[in-house]
Amino acid sequence: MKHNFGAGPCILPQEVFKEAAAAVLDFNGLSILEVSHRSADFVKVMEEARENVKKALNVPEGYTVLFLQGGASLGFLIAAYNLAGKHKRAAYINTGTWATKAVKEGANAGLEAIQIASSEDKGFNYIPDASEIPEDIDFLHYTSNNTIVGTQFKSIPETNVPLVCDMSSDIFSQPIDVSKFDLIYAGAQKNLGPAGATLYIVKDSILGKSSLHIPTYLDLAVHAKKDSMFNTPPVYSVFVSNLNLKHLLKNGGVEEMAKKNQAKADLLYNEIDNNPNFEGTTEVKDRSLMNVTFRLTDDSKKERFDQLWNDGNIVGLKGHRSVGGYRASMYNALELKSVEALVSIMKSL
Amino acid sequence: MKHNFGAGPCILPQEVFKEAAAAVLDFNGLSILEVSHRSADFVKVMEEARENVKKALNVPEGYTVLFLQGGASLGFLIAAYNLAGKHKRAAYINTGTWATKAVKEGANAGLEAIQIASSEDKGFNYIPDASEIPEDIDFLHYTSNNTIVGTQFKSIPETNVPLVCDMSSDIFSQPIDVSKFDLIYAGAQKNLGPAGATLYIVKDSILGKSSLHIPTYLDLAVHAKKDSMFNTPPVYSVFVSNLNLKHLLKNGGVEEMAKKNQAKADLLYNEIDNNPNFEGTTEVKDRSLMNVTFRLTDDSKKERFDQLWNDGNIVGLKGHRSVGGYRASMYNALELKSVEALVSIMKSL
Repeated sequence: MKHNFGAGPCILPQEVFKEAAAAVLDFNGLSILEVSHRSADFVKVMEEARENVKKALNVPEGYTVLFLQGGASLGFLIAAYNLAGKHKRAAYINTGTWATKAVKEGANAGLEAIQIASSEDKGFNYIPDASEIPEDIDFLHYTSNNTIVGTQFKSIPETNVPLVCDMSSDIFSQPIDVSKFDLIYAGAQKNLGPAGATLYIVKDSILGKSSLHIPTYLDLAVHAKKDSMFNTPPVYSVFVSNLNLKHLLKNGGVEEMAKKNQAKADLLYNEIDNNPNFEGTTEVKDRSLMNVTFRLTDDSKKERFDQLWNDGNIVGLKGHRSVGGYRASMYNALELKSVEALVSIMKSL
Repeated sequence: MKHNFGAGPCILPQEVFKEAAAAVLDFNGLSILEVSHRSADFVKVMEEARENVKKALNVPEGYTVLFLQGGASLGFLIAAYNLAGKHKRAAYINTGTWATKAVKEGANAGLEAIQIASSEDKGFNYIPDASEIPEDIDFLHYTSNNTIVGTQFKSIPETNVPLVCDMSSDIFSQPIDVSKFDLIYAGAQKNLGPAGATLYIVKDSILGKSSLHIPTYLDLAVHAKKDSMFNTPPVYSVFVSNLNLKHLLKNGGVEEMAKKNQAKADLLYNEIDNNPNFEGTTEVKDRSLMNVTFRLTDDSKKERFDQLWNDGNIVGLKGHRSVGGYRASMYNALELKSVEALVSIMKSL
């Protein structure tokens, strides 16, 4: 049994892997990999998955859930195209690599993409203040959790303008007030399911209202009208996401998950703060519960520490190349016992 | 054992399903669904898959193979963006629903998208003559096989302009001369692998030469530079595609597959032509080897025929809603014995 601290694609519950494997061999007499997306059996899966997203996040009336493709990298562009309004100007909070890419695609869609706050001055190791939000913009965009640097917004920015959020790396880890957002999007490959699907939760009232001409696949109204089946969806990613959503709902939902994630983060951050061999790399108030970044205080211990965690069946602990050090990603399916195993190894250094 | 004549996502070899299921439980100690796309293990899979596409199709030097997302529906747009040149005008051969969508996205990319030939006058039941190809265009686009109506190009259009082809539904079914094309693209979900990946085979010399400004995800040069790992790829779809490519190469490759596909098609078309209960729906010279469309000559026999094939464990035979009648899709993995089962049922009507 390996302890998978990888940043994503990441660990999912072992029960989900078992059900996911079984369906590759037999899903109502066929392999799930060979079923038509237009078959009654799969249409039911897609509808269940969309409904289970609504249940899990308590999505209010007036929103549509879609499973598309292309990851957040295409989502940056889709967000800008669909939320473009009369100002043709959008505001971004820049908290790292992914937020920076979002700004770029805002401009690529044809908008004036302005950064109203950025933490680039300190290598994105904190969440910048964004209390001054202009009114003459079409939307405000932010990244709720920053996988690479290990920071996370602790509250939703207060604004009257339409709010868009890339929640790729913390969606389903805690309750969120979906009613505050016009668009939420997220690559599936953290807390939702296997790589290959991208989730969109879009407020119906914005559909078809863009001030830009949108190519067909990038138009959320097109996908909404076709119940997320405009073209062949990523069948297996949606199927496994639905298994995982059912598992989440059966196990206390996002409320229970938030408690478990807090407990895991408390345990690890406590060790980082109290063990003289380690130090955190981000501002304490902005620490991510999903991606814990830290480094050795004495680099000469690197070889020994790396040996210890490798011997301890821990995988995926290497920090992102742009930050260095270590990153322990602790998504929903990572058990507390895996964090305990890591902490025990840290103590033994 | 069901005989899966579905139009796609479609049947793959049973051995591939077995290996695909096993890897969901154990791929070097993790589930394939939880491995990082940046792990050495998966980078090897991606490189193998790209290399196996080159082997299977005898791709010459100077081409790059990519596994992206979004299906042909996004491919229509990507093709137009990347091949746009000084004329900002592209020519399309319109052979049905998918070709029509390609024309639309050519225009959505900002090109003048002209139809130089179309078979719309007869419900797209034939491949139109396209011998008159203008020179003042950036590229010529066609759809090699038309899944819905059941027609297929029997040769590559002769032209000096850059040639682009959507080969979604017949790639890997027969040898093709890749050197004739500047871009080939194809949704994986027919003869390549599970839904969720889209294959691109692009001539290196066109990369970065577009006359349009291309959003990042839509720029093939971006993906080529990052070895098809610009962002998180559809890991499992690529993994299973690679299993299927290895199976193809081990079993005689596309040359052997072409023979088998011809034998299956001959058997079924022969029955359609000789059994007074049935008639084909397309012009004989343009018949697809992948998707065989036919109907009853006497509709009062519908209930009985439907009962017979349902009882015979045949699935996916219903024709597309826009054509009606029946469609037997006979992709690579469909065995001759499945066609024999269908023909035997047709004889018993």
